[in-house]
Amino acid sequence: MEQVLSDNNLVISVDAMGGDNSPRVVIEGLSIAAKKNPDIRFILFGDTAKVTPILNEFSNLKKVCELRHSPEMVHNEDKPSQVIRNRNTSMYMAIDAVRKGEAQAVVSAGNTGALMAISKLVLKTITKIHRPAIVSIMPHRNGKYIMLDLGANTECNAINLAEFALMGDILARHALGISKPRVALLNIGAEEMKGKEEIRQAAHMIKNSHMNIEFTGYVEPHEIPNGVADVIVADGFTGNIALKSTEGTARLVVRMLKDAIKSSFLAKLGLPFMLGVMLKVKKTMDPRLYNGAMFVGLNGLSVKSHGGTDALGFSVAVNNAANLVRQNFVATIREEIEKVDLDELSQEVIYEVY
Amino acid sequence: MEQVLSDNNLVISVDAMGGDNSPRVVIEGLSIAAKKNPDIRFILFGDTAKVTPILNEFSNLKKVCELRHSPEMVHNEDKPSQVIRNRNTSMYMAIDAVRKGEAQAVVSAGNTGALMAISKLVLKTITKIHRPAIVSIMPHRNGKYIMLDLGANTECNAINLAEFALMGDILARHALGISKPRVALLNIGAEEMKGKEEIRQAAHMIKNSHMNIEFTGYVEPHEIPNGVADVIVADGFTGNIALKSTEGTARLVVRMLKDAIKSSFLAKLGLPFMLGVMLKVKKTMDPRLYNGAMFVGLNGLSVKSHGGTDALGFSVAVNNAANLVRQNFVATIREEIEKVDLDELSQEVIYEVY
Repeated sequence: MEQVLSDNNLVISVDAMGGDNSPRVVIEGLSIAAKKNPDIRFILFGDTAKVTPILNEFSNLKKVCELRHSPEMVHNEDKPSQVIRNRNTSMYMAIDAVRKGEAQAVVSAGNTGALMAISKLVLKTITKIHRPAIVSIMPHRNGKYIMLDLGANTECNAINLAEFALMGDILARHALGISKPRVALLNIGAEEMKGKEEIRQAAHMIKNSHMNIEFTGYVEPHEIPNGVADVIVADGFTGNIALKSTEGTARLVVRMLKDAIKSSFLAKLGLPFMLGVMLKVKKTMDPRLYNGAMFVGLNGLSVKSHGGTDALGFSVAVNNAANLVRQNFVATIREEIEKVDLDELSQEVIYEVY
Repeated sequence: MEQVLSDNNLVISVDAMGGDNSPRVVIEGLSIAAKKNPDIRFILFGDTAKVTPILNEFSNLKKVCELRHSPEMVHNEDKPSQVIRNRNTSMYMAIDAVRKGEAQAVVSAGNTGALMAISKLVLKTITKIHRPAIVSIMPHRNGKYIMLDLGANTECNAINLAEFALMGDILARHALGISKPRVALLNIGAEEMKGKEEIRQAAHMIKNSHMNIEFTGYVEPHEIPNGVADVIVADGFTGNIALKSTEGTARLVVRMLKDAIKSSFLAKLGLPFMLGVMLKVKKTMDPRLYNGAMFVGLNGLSVKSHGGTDALGFSVAVNNAANLVRQNFVATIREEIEKVDLDELSQEVIYEVY
């Protein structure tokens, strides 16, 4: 394929082979993203035999997309430990392009565990941060909030949670444009004594630190939709449980409505009046529009698209990555963390425990 | 107040002072429950000065409700450790009536932590069971499922989880009438290696035990609404997070629909056609109809009503308690557990760890 690449300097590397319907969905998604973001250039990693024919269908990608061959790929069932050092996979090569400075962000719809493990190995965690986290932007009743960690760290100690609070605060200011984000810890009660030891310790740390965060205490999951906080902090297990419970219930309610309408003659008559309203609600809740979980805490931007998403969803993940690159997010988070004395967190733990 | 009590022998003791709008909501709830269950007699514990005037408004309670004075009450903000040994509260006295054999179940809308702590102290945990659990029956797409623990035990080990699986299995057979309930552990992935150590250990234990449970492995929260399992087992922290995420999202979707309809002229025109469908969905999801979390694993039945529920919700909690009494649930669970060799669970742990 003849390559006449544009000289855009916003470059995103893409794993063409990740996700349930790759490489087609990935390439279609890039085509949508390219129309919306004429300033992006893509470096696409994948099996050229499979990718080239599909890529040729999208003429708008010709000038902005460079295809590089990768002989292998990461599969959904692969364990991170199996694939972490295999430099021949499309995922590894796409991440490595960020390390080399060829791209400013990587997007993959592949295996989350592998993407996090390789991103950590290749891009390295920001100095002072112990653990990177998976972050997503989600809808509440009258706006958006950020939740982290969504599954990178099954178990977290208080320091990890306090660091997530700090990174979430920075992200909310830059990605949501909230000047003083309200940061809360996810818990099963509002009272100080509630929940797990590490959550209580983290609350104590954040309050007593010099992190200058607007910390509002604990939030319970059922309050989140009311928009009571802009940043919700949890360990990866709890965050993942809350996220998936939310997704499942939203789908259940919508499906129940559909089933009930189908089985009612009267409702079918009224449907034309309601279509606008239903589409509006569906659009607000549409998981594709919130696709693209960001890995924060790394020296480079890694964005995970949902594996089962469609082209629109994949394009949203690419848009998210591009927006954070334009805001120079990785440098910002590194600079802001540089200014904070995170050692005082560990000292808090020592005071607490002994 | 003159008492001409019926000689019904299904007796439920009730904490008149628990919950946000007590004693009115409690008494109204009892009146609804009494109409539905003419075989129940109630022993009501509370401040007679406050309770009597309201009780007098409900003539149908006269013959089936005995009021006993309790000088004190448990408040929402009380810590369990503060109230656990105070025998003068309406909550303590209501629970103690079950221990004495005067009632077969107790219902309270008061402080969950206190209700669990006093229930454990007074009724005692069933021999062989290490920790009682809070259980609720909830709706999925085409039926109901049982989830436990919903908050009694913030941290659980593998043995606790395996015991919850056993108790959930027995409850699903008796309360849901499912002959061979599918029991699953709540986790953040379906693969064997996923999640926390105690969950993996519990899976191993249940599979290798002689508990004769239809164990289907791990379930992720977003799959629950599809009805993939009849019993979902989690530690109390995780179960509580999943439950509250579900509640919050269901309310968010319904509220978004309402707001969207209000702001659309066309939708308002169509509303009359849709009302039936919306009421049907609302009714299926109505949290009041799933009110009444049961404490299982105790030598006596303790049922917790939501503190903020209304009279209908409270009556549902009473109905739940009555149904389990009719099914002789506490004796059944004790007998079934007697038959199971739970010691083998601990031995599994020993094999696993060393």
